[in-house]
Amino acid sequence: MKAVAVIGPGTCDEPLAAQAREVGRLLAEQGVALVCGGHGGVMEAAARGAHEAGGTTIGILPGTDACEANRFIQIPIVTGMGEARNVIIIRSAQAVIAIGGEFGTLSEIAFALKLGVPVIGLNTWKLARENEPVSIGVEAQTPAAAVAAALEKIR
Amino acid sequence: MKAVAVIGPGTCDEPLAAQAREVGRLLAEQGVALVCGGHGGVMEAAARGAHEAGGTTIGILPGTDACEANRFIQIPIVTGMGEARNVIIIRSAQAVIAIGGEFGTLSEIAFALKLGVPVIGLNTWKLARENEPVSIGVEAQTPAAAVAAALEKIR
Amino acid sequence: MKAVAVIGPGTCDEPLAAQAREVGRLLAEQGVALVCGGHGGVMEAAARGAHEAGGTTIGILPGTDACEANRFIQIPIVTGMGEARNVIIIRSAQAVIAIGGEFGTLSEIAFALKLGVPVIGLNTWKLARENEPVSIGVEAQTPAAAVAAALEKIR
Amino acid sequence: MKAVAVIGPGTCDEPLAAQAREVGRLLAEQGVALVCGGHGGVMEAAARGAHEAGGTTIGILPGTDACEANRFIQIPIVTGMGEARNVIIIRSAQAVIAIGGEFGTLSEIAFALKLGVPVIGLNTWKLARENEPVSIGVEAQTPAAAVAAALEKIR
Repeated sequence: MKAVAVIGPGTCDEPLAAQAREVGRLLAEQGVALVCGGHGGVMEAAARGAHEAGGTTIGILPGTDACEANRFIQIPIVTGMGEARNVIIIRSAQAVIAIGGEFGTLSEIAFALKLGVPVIGLNTWKLARENEPVSIGVEAQTPAAAVAAALEKIR
Repeated sequence: MKAVAVIGPGTCDEPLAAQAREVGRLLAEQGVALVCGGHGGVMEAAARGAHEAGGTTIGILPGTDACEANRFIQIPIVTGMGEARNVIIIRSAQAVIAIGGEFGTLSEIAFALKLGVPVIGLNTWKLARENEPVSIGVEAQTPAAAVAAALEKIR
Repeated sequence: MKAVAVIGPGTCDEPLAAQAREVGRLLAEQGVALVCGGHGGVMEAAARGAHEAGGTTIGILPGTDACEANRFIQIPIVTGMGEARNVIIIRSAQAVIAIGGEFGTLSEIAFALKLGVPVIGLNTWKLARENEPVSIGVEAQTPAAAVAAALEKIR
Repeated sequence: MKAVAVIGPGTCDEPLAAQAREVGRLLAEQGVALVCGGHGGVMEAAARGAHEAGGTTIGILPGTDACEANRFIQIPIVTGMGEARNVIIIRSAQAVIAIGGEFGTLSEIAFALKLGVPVIGLNTWKLARENEPVSIGVEAQTPAAAVAAALEKIR
């Protein structure tokens, strides 16, 4: 089964949540499983969208209790490994959609770039090194464009 | 969704594989997801049984490639963390059925006992300390008895 | 630098602590670094013995705070990975001395046997499979014998 | 014992190596242990500088063999957890100096920012979000300034 990770902050405002929910829905409609960190914010909104469309939702949790998963997670994976679980999210997906993002999201983008997993960004981090911009991959403007780009990467 | 882990060696003889397959089938028939290490032997036989009965099969892989999962794994979780993934198998299940077992299985039994996850054994390790036997939990004689004991633990 | 892991329970009685302290002292006197889980009980007693003899003490901690290390740990490694840190203790040593032990210790013995790291036991677990005893390696009767066996393994 | 992490790419040119070596030397002269990823490039140069000044050098290795550590690592910690070891590097230090950097370094900077470990950058990543620059912490221009800033953070 194909899987795409949706990464983003654990708390977010309504517009970002709407984008994440739309991304989740569109992935599920294409028969793609959603992998995320299992917590709130962007993770919960994406899982909600996928769940409402009948999709499979996988939450790779940092803590030691499956109950910390948001209510739209069908399959909680309980790592007990804290932030180290971010690597597992990236490794378990064939592409990553980053929506907004705090520092945890940045670590996941970095792992994806390091490991060669395609990244699609939606209102997320911009990087530069020695005053030269470094692309994270695709920069999408809408949920539909982000999902289309992800699907193309995992085809 | 309830999940039970089936743990055991990555290579096994036909009688042990038949037991594991039967355990996987019975779990799936009860609507319980199967969590395992995703490799061969007991893991593959259990996943096969669950898959053939229409169940959900989750493989927590030690390596860095989803392709190392056996062909009956529906949801591969790619940890890249080697043997440390054994902890995740245990934490992600509400009960553990140990079938046969080499040293990796022993580490998983130990983690389950440490973390308070119920263990049901089927032809597996026996423990003693200071010449006193230490029970691993339930010792079942058949796949059906093992699954019944596991279901009782997670009810 | 050669390193030997001393593993054992986080709380222990005085006789076991005395054995662990003696093991730590003897390792340090041979110029061997001590690796342990960094907590109390056998871990603290071994670190104390090594520290008092001027040895190097490394504590591989499960939590997220260096302050959880016992006061004899010179080098705290803060994993934040809970029980998964047990694998790191084993991988970072060339031999393992198990003193007493609860289930965490059992998981470490299992990892050592799985990974081929020599194990020396002192009042620790006994294993059997299909009613056949399975040796954990060397069973020592005294701290001096345990350290001598470990030194022979890492020579 | 205080510890500072030096993070950076596994291969680097001579000027960057010279900076890393100087950073390692200055840390050792202040009695601060060096934590790094244990591999080549910036990691090796920093370890070399610290080692030559009589300092303690700790290498948190991603692989399964202590032999992968560079020859200036006194204490190899063998995680076998791949990139997940980046979290351990950050958690085991009280401050982080980032020198140059590829995507692995970026993940470490992100973890440090997430976990509240002070970051000092030397020719490293620049970040922005929604076209607003996001500071990684201190941007130093020389090894001496980087070490001075790190020492101030851990005082």
